Amino acid sequence: MAADSPFVSDVPAAAALDAWREACAATGCPPRVDAVRVPVAEAVGRVTAEPVWARRSSPAFDASGMDGIAVRAADTVGAAETTPVLLRDFAVVDTGDPLPEGYDAVVMREHVHRVGEAAEVRAAVPPYQHVRSIGEDIAAAELLLPAGHRLRPVDVAAAAAAGAVELSVRRAPVVVVVPTGDEIRPIGTDPAPGEILDTNSLMLAAQARELGCEARVTPIVADDPAVIMQTLQEATAEADLVVLVAGSSAGRDDYTARVVAKAGTLAVHGVAVRPGHPVVLGAVEATPVLGAPGYPVSAALTFDIFAAPLLAALEGAAPRERPTTTARLARKLASNVGMDDWVRVRLGRVGGDVVATPLPRGAGVLTSLVRADGLLVVPAGLEGHHAGEQVRVELLRGLGEIGRTIVAIGSHDLVLDVAASALRTDDPLVTLAGSNVGSLGGLVALRDGLCHLAGSHLLDPATGEYTLPYVDKILGAEDVAVVRLVHRDQGLIVAPGNPLGISGIEDLARGGVRYVNRQRGAGTRALLDHELSRRGLDPAQVDGYSREEHTHLAVAAAVAAGRADAGLGILAAARAFGLDFVPVAREPYDLVLRASTLDEPLLAPLWELLARPAFRDEVEALGGYSCAETGRRIR
Amino acid sequence: MAADSPFVSDVPAAAALDAWREACAATGCPPRVDAVRVPVAEAVGRVTAEPVWARRSSPAFDASGMDGIAVRAADTVGAAETTPVLLRDFAVVDTGDPLPEGYDAVVMREHVHRVGEAAEVRAAVPPYQHVRSIGEDIAAAELLLPAGHRLRPVDVAAAAAAGAVELSVRRAPVVVVVPTGDEIRPIGTDPAPGEILDTNSLMLAAQARELGCEARVTPIVADDPAVIMQTLQEATAEADLVVLVAGSSAGRDDYTARVVAKAGTLAVHGVAVRPGHPVVLGAVEATPVLGAPGYPVSAALTFDIFAAPLLAALEGAAPRERPTTTARLARKLASNVGMDDWVRVRLGRVGGDVVATPLPRGAGVLTSLVRADGLLVVPAGLEGHHAGEQVRVELLRGLGEIGRTIVAIGSHDLVLDVAASALRTDDPLVTLAGSNVGSLGGLVALRDGLCHLAGSHLLDPATGEYTLPYVDKILGAEDVAVVRLVHRDQGLIVAPGNPLGISGIEDLARGGVRYVNRQRGAGTRALLDHELSRRGLDPAQVDGYSREEHTHLAVAAAVAAGRADAGLGILAAARAFGLDFVPVAREPYDLVLRASTLDEPLLAPLWELLARPAFRDEVEALGGYSCAETGRRIR
Repeated sequence: MAADSPFVSDVPAAAALDAWREACAATGCPPRVDAVRVPVAEAVGRVTAEPVWARRSSPAFDASGMDGIAVRAADTVGAAETTPVLLRDFAVVDTGDPLPEGYDAVVMREHVHRVGEAAEVRAAVPPYQHVRSIGEDIAAAELLLPAGHRLRPVDVAAAAAAGAVELSVRRAPVVVVVPTGDEIRPIGTDPAPGEILDTNSLMLAAQARELGCEARVTPIVADDPAVIMQTLQEATAEADLVVLVAGSSAGRDDYTARVVAKAGTLAVHGVAVRPGHPVVLGAVEATPVLGAPGYPVSAALTFDIFAAPLLAALEGAAPRERPTTTARLARKLASNVGMDDWVRVRLGRVGGDVVATPLPRGAGVLTSLVRADGLLVVPAGLEGHHAGEQVRVELLRGLGEIGRTIVAIGSHDLVLDVAASALRTDDPLVTLAGSNVGSLGGLVALRDGLCHLAGSHLLDPATGEYTLPYVDKILGAEDVAVVRLVHRDQGLIVAPGNPLGISGIEDLARGGVRYVNRQRGAGTRALLDHELSRRGLDPAQVDGYSREEHTHLAVAAAVAAGRADAGLGILAAARAFGLDFVPVAREPYDLVLRASTLDEPLLAPLWELLARPAFRDEVEALGGYSCAETGRRIR
Repeated sequence: MAADSPFVSDVPAAAALDAWREACAATGCPPRVDAVRVPVAEAVGRVTAEPVWARRSSPAFDASGMDGIAVRAADTVGAAETTPVLLRDFAVVDTGDPLPEGYDAVVMREHVHRVGEAAEVRAAVPPYQHVRSIGEDIAAAELLLPAGHRLRPVDVAAAAAAGAVELSVRRAPVVVVVPTGDEIRPIGTDPAPGEILDTNSLMLAAQARELGCEARVTPIVADDPAVIMQTLQEATAEADLVVLVAGSSAGRDDYTARVVAKAGTLAVHGVAVRPGHPVVLGAVEATPVLGAPGYPVSAALTFDIFAAPLLAALEGAAPRERPTTTARLARKLASNVGMDDWVRVRLGRVGGDVVATPLPRGAGVLTSLVRADGLLVVPAGLEGHHAGEQVRVELLRGLGEIGRTIVAIGSHDLVLDVAASALRTDDPLVTLAGSNVGSLGGLVALRDGLCHLAGSHLLDPATGEYTLPYVDKILGAEDVAVVRLVHRDQGLIVAPGNPLGISGIEDLARGGVRYVNRQRGAGTRALLDHELSRRGLDPAQVDGYSREEHTHLAVAAAVAAGRADAGLGILAAARAFGLDFVPVAREPYDLVLRASTLDEPLLAPLWELLARPAFRDEVEALGGYSCAETGRRIR
């Protein structure tokens, strides 16, 4: 489109990393950060710069391995239950005491009977019984730790036992993060429309620190190539890696690639990774430079994929690895051939299986990473995965914790958020994880064994009955329980003061009202359809019927932003945004589950919570909720 | 034995933890550390004290999701390859720009052809294409993070995007470590015989810091109950957990249990965990107290098993979990019924299987924890495991790294240490892990698929030939390769100046010479047997023939300590301890492996190393080695 836009290519991740390393080497970037000698206590977390050979043995003397008496083994020959031997020549020893000169074995105190000054022994002992030989743990001159080893508490303790007082380790690499962009504002300010808070620098610096690096963030730099270049060059003076945030693509104000090319070497511009595609890898003044995209998920993953291995190499250590698990994929997952696709997934243990449910895939949806239990990488060569396929997932949360997670898939309601929060406060091991796919999607997920609970409020237009007809249709009559969560008010969420004077559903068809709808399969959409059809109205008459949001809060947000004039949703969502609310219906919201799982320990904390008056009070205080039937099993 | 010794019981770990928690609650220990408000940037690693609800939406406005032009979707109706539409009303936008008023979709710049001031579009676009809706990532008022969540970089970034400037988190728990013992000396001092360096405090404080705690170590306290009590009481004033190190058993100088009982509440004395048995759990002045055993492995594991969950609970967070794997057990493992047995294992991927080889099990062998890739817990109810059984192992090292580990089991030689160190320095991802079980044990391990390489120097007394006859016998003729590592001198390691005037093997039988032998199956022992039999000498004539050590260095250490007068071993071991050496034989030391694995990428770095002149020079500089045939395949 613009003649001066550099082309963003699709270099495979491994090739990009290789090209970056080569460019760094070619331009004189040091292969390792310097070695420094530090006291053992400060060496934890650092990487050994040279092997650690033992200077002393440990134990440094033959020591008693038990509390008891030191004896000469030869003196105990013949001792037995029926023929005890009375020893007068022995020494009382405690565990760890040096074995006194002249003795060569220890008898445990439990096996010694004191008779005046003598000791009676009822079993012969072999020489060196319960003696810890000199060097049993560490022999002087042996290799204790290789170079390139990240030191843990046990390592430094062993090194100290082997005579080390200081260790030669790699100093912490220094990462300087340079935020760029005219629209970027520091955290703590109140951004005007169109402005964005600098959350990426906060995150990237924290990611660097998590890897054991020192990290510094420069002031925000405007979209001015000269200033970016100057800041970059200053940063290289103190940094082992400079991360330029945003401007890595090929938009009008994207200068990173050009600045890096001008100031040093541009090795890669664009990688075959999604999210993350417009990545810049290069070197300036013998310092590696990473240009990270501004989308937060891209920025986070780019750091993981490219910066983390480079920083590990600078320390001479193996990169940290995430543990993995296999999981059953909850639904079909399409992926671009030619791009590694880093898909964030929620994990839950349902019926013995670990189930992976993909989260929203947009590069801008940071909460997809916040909520993720794992990362599923669909490699460039694959078109995706089928539903039910066993896939390999990198874990972001422990499998034990995942096993104690109640997976709720279905309709969204704030009460589930409140419950999740209350459960976790009671017991940090209990997680209630909700995925919002609408009521219908929840019932299907329950049928397919993808969740423990389906939150549902689906109105059957034929019977006017909620949820149960769908339960029969989708799940059959067997092994299904339905527990009432709440009754709640649904209504039209409108701007404060209701400027368009909307009084009910019929106003949506009058023209001049921009509606924002929920997605197909959402109970709230079914409610709208029902209310429209009751009034003989056609969805085509509703302006914005095809505009879909996935939660009540997103609908309210759209109204609050003035992008829509009305949307159907719950009172709590309207209140959260300070909006007005025109009631339409009071409806039950139920939890559907397998009856056979009702008594599972996993769910017990939830049932206890629903019975708790304080919880019910908290829910009703949200407004628009009634807990009169909360916790009642209605089927 | 002593009347005043308290009894050390065997409380199962879970019951002990429960009893400790109850005692803490009953004596007024706070269930959680205080909540504090900290800036988001300082909140990483801390645990949320309350849920984080979004205060603003992100994005806070409808934004362009792509670089391109903002259009009205309605204007593009009918556009197609053959019927392009020329738009005059549009706005150029970059990714992240607010969608300009009046437009409702974005066309990617790659799909736009500029024609003068106009833009040609060749496909119709639906409304809201490439538009990021307000709240797409975060909707104001939604639950972003629950209480009890340990904050990661993505979490604080999302919280900041949602309007948080500060977060309410639990402050870091404070752990005070109190080292006790008359024989304990600070690190950095030169301990006299019988004295022990205070490596436990170093380790325990580092373990606490690794969990995100603040940790402080008091000066070393003598074995005086009054002083211990005073130090303990002072420590409780500032600590959320006090760890008293050593003195937790029932020896003469073990005061921990009595002091805790006197100053507060003693909940548990002795747990059914090995190593770790003599553990003290209690509370003093509303502060939990852990009495950790002095054996370093016991101390480390005790902290893991008891302190870590308590500290996580104080933060209101789920305890950290180690990932696990299943592995094939290399050999039979017996275990005490009634005790959870925490067995340290080495792991290697051999022929597709993860193989777990138990390491030495003594509570004093800290290197068993240093060298461990995993922990295998044999629960109290089990007598152990059979060889070849699939067992569950908690991982201490990533499976990826484990997969790049060359597992060498067999005879010990320093050249393997030197090689391990050199390989790791070249590439931090390559590990050469040796287990010393003697030459014969190595060949058996190779046969059983437990290792990649068996280091061997087994002399066949019948033929005078090394290794090959045993290879035939144990491994058969098929699929075996033998690569020469080195020739090395074996000789008698004797005290400096050779005070007993030992000139050869025959002197071992002359009386007055205390010998230290190697274990059965060790090539060096076979060499001794061969040399004795050549001279018509009987092993019974050798004083100390039955005293076994497992490595050359341990033999040298025994001689250096004056516990033995002579032992057969390599020159390098004698040199390491500044000892004299009486040559006996020059022998080949070979690496035996499956021929089919010779070309595996895993082993390539080793073959490259053996061919490197600098490596050969380094080995020969150790003394007593010849590299003339290093790397040559002799079968």
